[in-house]
Amino acid sequence: MDYILLVDILGVITFSISGVLSSLKKRMDAFGILIIAFVTSVGGGTIRDILIGSEVMWMQEMIYVYVILITTILAVIFRKKLAYMRKSLFLFDTLGIGLYTVVGVEKGISYGFSAEICIAIGTMSACFGGVIRDTLCNEIPVIFRKEVYATACILGGLSYFLLLELNVPKGLIFIIAGIVVILVRLAAVVFKISLPSIYKKEENIEDYW
Amino acid sequence: MDYILLVDILGVITFSISGVLSSLKKRMDAFGILIIAFVTSVGGGTIRDILIGSEVMWMQEMIYVYVILITTILAVIFRKKLAYMRKSLFLFDTLGIGLYTVVGVEKGISYGFSAEICIAIGTMSACFGGVIRDTLCNEIPVIFRKEVYATACILGGLSYFLLLELNVPKGLIFIIAGIVVILVRLAAVVFKISLPSIYKKEENIEDYW
Amino acid sequence: MDYILLVDILGVITFSISGVLSSLKKRMDAFGILIIAFVTSVGGGTIRDILIGSEVMWMQEMIYVYVILITTILAVIFRKKLAYMRKSLFLFDTLGIGLYTVVGVEKGISYGFSAEICIAIGTMSACFGGVIRDTLCNEIPVIFRKEVYATACILGGLSYFLLLELNVPKGLIFIIAGIVVILVRLAAVVFKISLPSIYKKEENIEDYW
Repeated sequence: MDYILLVDILGVITFSISGVLSSLKKRMDAFGILIIAFVTSVGGGTIRDILIGSEVMWMQEMIYVYVILITTILAVIFRKKLAYMRKSLFLFDTLGIGLYTVVGVEKGISYGFSAEICIAIGTMSACFGGVIRDTLCNEIPVIFRKEVYATACILGGLSYFLLLELNVPKGLIFIIAGIVVILVRLAAVVFKISLPSIYKKEENIEDYW
Repeated sequence: MDYILLVDILGVITFSISGVLSSLKKRMDAFGILIIAFVTSVGGGTIRDILIGSEVMWMQEMIYVYVILITTILAVIFRKKLAYMRKSLFLFDTLGIGLYTVVGVEKGISYGFSAEICIAIGTMSACFGGVIRDTLCNEIPVIFRKEVYATACILGGLSYFLLLELNVPKGLIFIIAGIVVILVRLAAVVFKISLPSIYKKEENIEDYW
Repeated sequence: MDYILLVDILGVITFSISGVLSSLKKRMDAFGILIIAFVTSVGGGTIRDILIGSEVMWMQEMIYVYVILITTILAVIFRKKLAYMRKSLFLFDTLGIGLYTVVGVEKGISYGFSAEICIAIGTMSACFGGVIRDTLCNEIPVIFRKEVYATACILGGLSYFLLLELNVPKGLIFIIAGIVVILVRLAAVVFKISLPSIYKKEENIEDYW
């Protein structure tokens, strides 16, 4: 339980920092930076909770609010040092999406949704904070262009239900499915794997319509 | 009942294809294309269901998920052929918004909302998938610039309550109000009708403020 | 009670006009202008109500729908005269965010949320209509760049809970906290106060990452 909370907090910190970086690039003010850090951290979970009809998680647990607030302040002050933390942040982020995917899948199951919907819920939990961040920063969401991020979540969700079919104990499924997300993402980045592009060079989509 | 399901599926297919086309133009990857197809198809209904406090429709019915998934894959593969389907797609899209408007209006009524709100709910059901699609693609929503699309939905919704006042049987109202949406949209496109522009040529709005 | 309704209506009118101005600048059509006026006016309250799990306020009270509709029509017709109303509109807007902040805080309290969350809810009630407006108009939300607007709401929310600690009567807290929002905003604009910028001149954020 304590490990999960630790990974969760590391994930929130990393997501907040990515929100701070995006908003600094747009030269937002203190309030804008805080809001972007906030939606990046809790936006995915908020959409999850609204869609499944649950109470919104961060509104019940003050720890998220304070972690985001403190992270944002420190990240703004020490913004010139963030590049030195690049590898740690990538690792925390990867741990975070692994955790959020599996937590989202399990929350979907506990509300009685089908496997397909639970995988979608898990993927949205992990990815849609970044989608809101980029939309508010007036950019096309980066995960719509770099697919291994979301693909890792989908594969983790699929493996969850595969293991469930095989009657693997629940606690073990939680860990293995999370590790699948993490390994797929690590492998993709380390070995520079990406799905084959669907676009031909010089292909002009405007011609088709 | 079977006709309604057929029109619904044709609508979902057409909305998915419009999402695929928008995302291809932004050179999104496979995941981004799928998400945009998804929100275009079910986004309007999702906003409707969240606002009225209902369960979210597509999370209960797996058929939507699979129709969108298969449509997206086929639309990406055969994207060069889509222009040949232009007229069919326009027709399905028009049938779709007619259906979604009336279904939205009736869902609003069943939750006890007033006529004005039901018309708004019906129009949002039909139009807001496209609004989310364009926002995520970093464009100003196209229906905010081409008004006959939404105007057709509003007129269909108004005729629904007019017929209700006249004690027309419910089943008949469903069909007539849907046909109003469809005919207004068809007429507007065939005869190139549009509401008179509110802008004067060379008018510079920036001057007013 | 009547004063509160009056301030509420003035706030809705002002927010609608700001939506009309934003959409006119993007040369939207009649439908787009109406939708933008609508989301600017009720978007903040809608997000508040969805997050706390309440019924959505404007769907129960027809007066909002009609005030927004009439305001939008008049604002489009008399758009060349709007600049003359600049000072009145600024005043109404300031009164409006004062009211919305306090109403949001109290709604949060009545749903049992903590002080931190209630302040966030109040601030979102007052500010997020404009965030949706700017996002749909394909702009970075203006309040993410001009911080005194949201800062006034946060200070008003903080003073609400400070006064609650001091056992000030509820009715008085409502008024004082609202006045704090209004005075902070007025003072900031009149004396051109803004929080110190966090950016150094010529600082290039892209270098940090």
